Amino acid sequence: MDSSQFREAAQGAIEDIINYYDNIADRPVLPSIAPGYLHHLLPDGPPEESESWSKIRSDIDRVIMPGLTHWQSPKYMAFFPCNSSFPGMLGEMYSGAFNAAAFNWICSPAVTELETIVMDWVAQLLGLPECYLSKGEGGGIIQGTASEVVVTCVVAARERILRRKFAHLPEGEDKMDQMAEMRGKLVALGSEHAHSSTQKAAIIAGTRYRSVPAPRSTNFSVAAAALRRTIEECKAKGLEPFYFTATIGSTATCAVDDLSGIAELAKDYPDLWIHVDAAYAGSALVCPEYQHLCPPLATFDSFNFNLHKWLLVNFDCSAFFIKKRRDLIDTFSITPSYLRNQFTDSGLVTDYRDWQIPLGRRFRSLKVWFVLRTYGVNGLRTFIRKHIKLSEYFHGLVESREDLFGVITGPDFALTTFQVKPFIPSSTAAANEPDPRHEAYTNDFTHDAEARYLEDANKVTKEVCEKINSKGEFFLTGTVVCGVYVIRVVSATLNAEEKYLKLVFEELVKAAEEVRSLKSE
Amino acid sequence: MDSSQFREAAQGAIEDIINYYDNIADRPVLPSIAPGYLHHLLPDGPPEESESWSKIRSDIDRVIMPGLTHWQSPKYMAFFPCNSSFPGMLGEMYSGAFNAAAFNWICSPAVTELETIVMDWVAQLLGLPECYLSKGEGGGIIQGTASEVVVTCVVAARERILRRKFAHLPEGEDKMDQMAEMRGKLVALGSEHAHSSTQKAAIIAGTRYRSVPAPRSTNFSVAAAALRRTIEECKAKGLEPFYFTATIGSTATCAVDDLSGIAELAKDYPDLWIHVDAAYAGSALVCPEYQHLCPPLATFDSFNFNLHKWLLVNFDCSAFFIKKRRDLIDTFSITPSYLRNQFTDSGLVTDYRDWQIPLGRRFRSLKVWFVLRTYGVNGLRTFIRKHIKLSEYFHGLVESREDLFGVITGPDFALTTFQVKPFIPSSTAAANEPDPRHEAYTNDFTHDAEARYLEDANKVTKEVCEKINSKGEFFLTGTVVCGVYVIRVVSATLNAEEKYLKLVFEELVKAAEEVRSLKSE
Repeated sequence: MDSSQFREAAQGAIEDIINYYDNIADRPVLPSIAPGYLHHLLPDGPPEESESWSKIRSDIDRVIMPGLTHWQSPKYMAFFPCNSSFPGMLGEMYSGAFNAAAFNWICSPAVTELETIVMDWVAQLLGLPECYLSKGEGGGIIQGTASEVVVTCVVAARERILRRKFAHLPEGEDKMDQMAEMRGKLVALGSEHAHSSTQKAAIIAGTRYRSVPAPRSTNFSVAAAALRRTIEECKAKGLEPFYFTATIGSTATCAVDDLSGIAELAKDYPDLWIHVDAAYAGSALVCPEYQHLCPPLATFDSFNFNLHKWLLVNFDCSAFFIKKRRDLIDTFSITPSYLRNQFTDSGLVTDYRDWQIPLGRRFRSLKVWFVLRTYGVNGLRTFIRKHIKLSEYFHGLVESREDLFGVITGPDFALTTFQVKPFIPSSTAAANEPDPRHEAYTNDFTHDAEARYLEDANKVTKEVCEKINSKGEFFLTGTVVCGVYVIRVVSATLNAEEKYLKLVFEELVKAAEEVRSLKSE
Repeated sequence: MDSSQFREAAQGAIEDIINYYDNIADRPVLPSIAPGYLHHLLPDGPPEESESWSKIRSDIDRVIMPGLTHWQSPKYMAFFPCNSSFPGMLGEMYSGAFNAAAFNWICSPAVTELETIVMDWVAQLLGLPECYLSKGEGGGIIQGTASEVVVTCVVAARERILRRKFAHLPEGEDKMDQMAEMRGKLVALGSEHAHSSTQKAAIIAGTRYRSVPAPRSTNFSVAAAALRRTIEECKAKGLEPFYFTATIGSTATCAVDDLSGIAELAKDYPDLWIHVDAAYAGSALVCPEYQHLCPPLATFDSFNFNLHKWLLVNFDCSAFFIKKRRDLIDTFSITPSYLRNQFTDSGLVTDYRDWQIPLGRRFRSLKVWFVLRTYGVNGLRTFIRKHIKLSEYFHGLVESREDLFGVITGPDFALTTFQVKPFIPSSTAAANEPDPRHEAYTNDFTHDAEARYLEDANKVTKEVCEKINSKGEFFLTGTVVCGVYVIRVVSATLNAEEKYLKLVFEELVKAAEEVRSLKSE
């Protein structure tokens, strides 16, 4: 493919992309194909000879489009969003052209330096404490996903505590043996509602994992007292907690752990690495009305959020901020001779490969730079506030039908979770009187009647969620939190609008009435 | 930015990209800026209000371009290449548009299914043993970099040996204690010339690491006997080797370990996970004349190579093939309720998140699909063979000046490594007679005279390499292999041509003569 063929193909791609975005709301969000669909549409091996771009392009419509889930659709309300934007796409275009495995500063200085600068911009934008800026001992780096960030932290935390505990021993086999023994006693901690990535990171790091209770009574958040209890329980068993993921915006309900309380607690456990995972909700910190969450971060070790979720930068782009970059470098730096150069040796430059697991790196800061400049600080705030307002609207709709639905949490960070109320046979409830068991929603489910009620509610809620998803028009996530099956509705996609929330609500009402009426038969 | 503004901006980007590629050979490969250059050119924080695209675009030329290292230039001959291509860029464009965090099949079935199909295509293209195809118990996955693949393997290998050794114990604290104790005894192995990623992976996995000698006498390759010796030495110390990285194409010299011998050895150590890292050289396997390397892979556990190095797919794209996918899933699978769905539960679909460290995934198979179809099998073979031929040409040039240069290795996989011969005072060598000490190049450096000679040769070679790089016109890598400082010249970029190899050779001759004449003064 020469330059002029590329021009023609790329101009066609632009039209395809524009057409896709202009009409995305007309498509059902979920594909209607069955597992293995693509196998029947493609040959078993690569072609011997070159194929024309026109043939390849036509296959995008024929074989790819029917198998896509449309995350950019305003009817996508599942998981958390993964928002794209036009300036983000332009960033990827230039990044692909300047293609490099930029593992060292000298491998492409602009890649490293723009990253340092835009991460400082982002830190300021979010109101993060000064310790996370590059001018001191900290700084920011772009990693692929929050999961990778968490692994990076868990491993660095594991090595930091070992370095500290055995600093007095001379290097050698004996020290390695003692470190290995202690490594076997280490425990990583996370909220029972923390993203599964902390548990996975503990597996990768080869340490134990314990979850910290975060019951409904604390709105699914980790209270400092609960964390302290778990730490002390571990210590009593001869185990050593070395890491904790605190969460701003848990996956299920967008719960925020008790950051101030945990910051107090941190003083008693100086070897505990505390990382704050704000993967989705962190984007809201661009608005001053959320920045009261930031001061405790100064006490913690690291923080991350994904610009690819709610801040318009194409996947992947997880911003990871570290208070003391030495905590990463002391663990991850290995410099074989082929990676040495005068700039690295001078210590004047940042080699981000020592802050992460992979060696090579893409030029991801370009898309961040383009998005921040295209929207401006005020544009980004407007974007977030629109979604917050939409979720208040949706929450109001749910509350307006308390005969059918019970809100469980929210709206928090544009997420509302709720249950469908089960059908109550008329023999047990007068038609115009509220059934007392509905009150169970606001209490703990300790009694038998409440437990039975919850079981019924979980069942109908799951059925309603599956009914909506099976139609494919909208995509919602159902999940279980402390035994409660909830439907999650997130109103934070690029083109979210009131009318789509109204539409999905009407579908929910219809589905709830259908499911309940089937139960009543 | 609306659709029509995006159209205009993206069309401009295409012109910028075409212009960049059409004129890339005219630029010096290395930038001439100093560390921190960008800080002086950009504001300290993000703009409050939206900026126009024309302003942003003009900054690419003003502030980014001067700080780029041009990996796509035919004058880039350092490290290994990181080749881009127009069809690869088109893949990134569509992938950015279909933006999703596709961690499950249902999150975008086309993302998973196209990846399975193109990885099967790639396996066939390379002549990999059948066990690496998805139809059996194995399969392929795209990961970001070879480093991530190696971490994935080391962690899976660590957990596999623990599962096997303690399968007889009931689950519980006692089992965990015993596993933790054994984890502390585990040793990962790699060639002394294996990429640093194996050592880094061992740090991440929290295991020990030992390197296996690969001396010049075996052309810097690991012989099976050397591996066996290292394994037995570890066992004698009470340690347990559980993982070995075998290499096709080592970083310094493109050495290939003794795969057939190691495959024989593997029968004696069934719990040793053997991974083959062919990050760069693996692309050559598209040519049948290299596929004699493949049969031993059937005995090993996993294999990877980077399509983003030598096979025209933009960074990042590391193809990772596993013989038994259960070996990954048994370690990495965690399914919290919010990730459950009928398709995952059915077992009919692949959830690649359980084959890797991160959760989310980009739609990277698109660019592979575009490249394989645009070039076709024959086009890719032609591409590789052109580079092989160019390296033979360059090797001939180096050999033509044996007064100045001594080849150390190659040409292997388009890489030649060589030293500059030091200046020999005329008092010790008659003008027209070869100096006997030059013969030292072909022997071990055991004698004092040879050691002094090597020291001199290392010094001038390093000076010559730095002299070339300091001009910035070409970019070469110097490295040390078994005490020998070599210059590496790789002739495998997209637009590599004989004329650029001739040019760099002339520069090398000039620099060598200058450095030597300074020494003679």
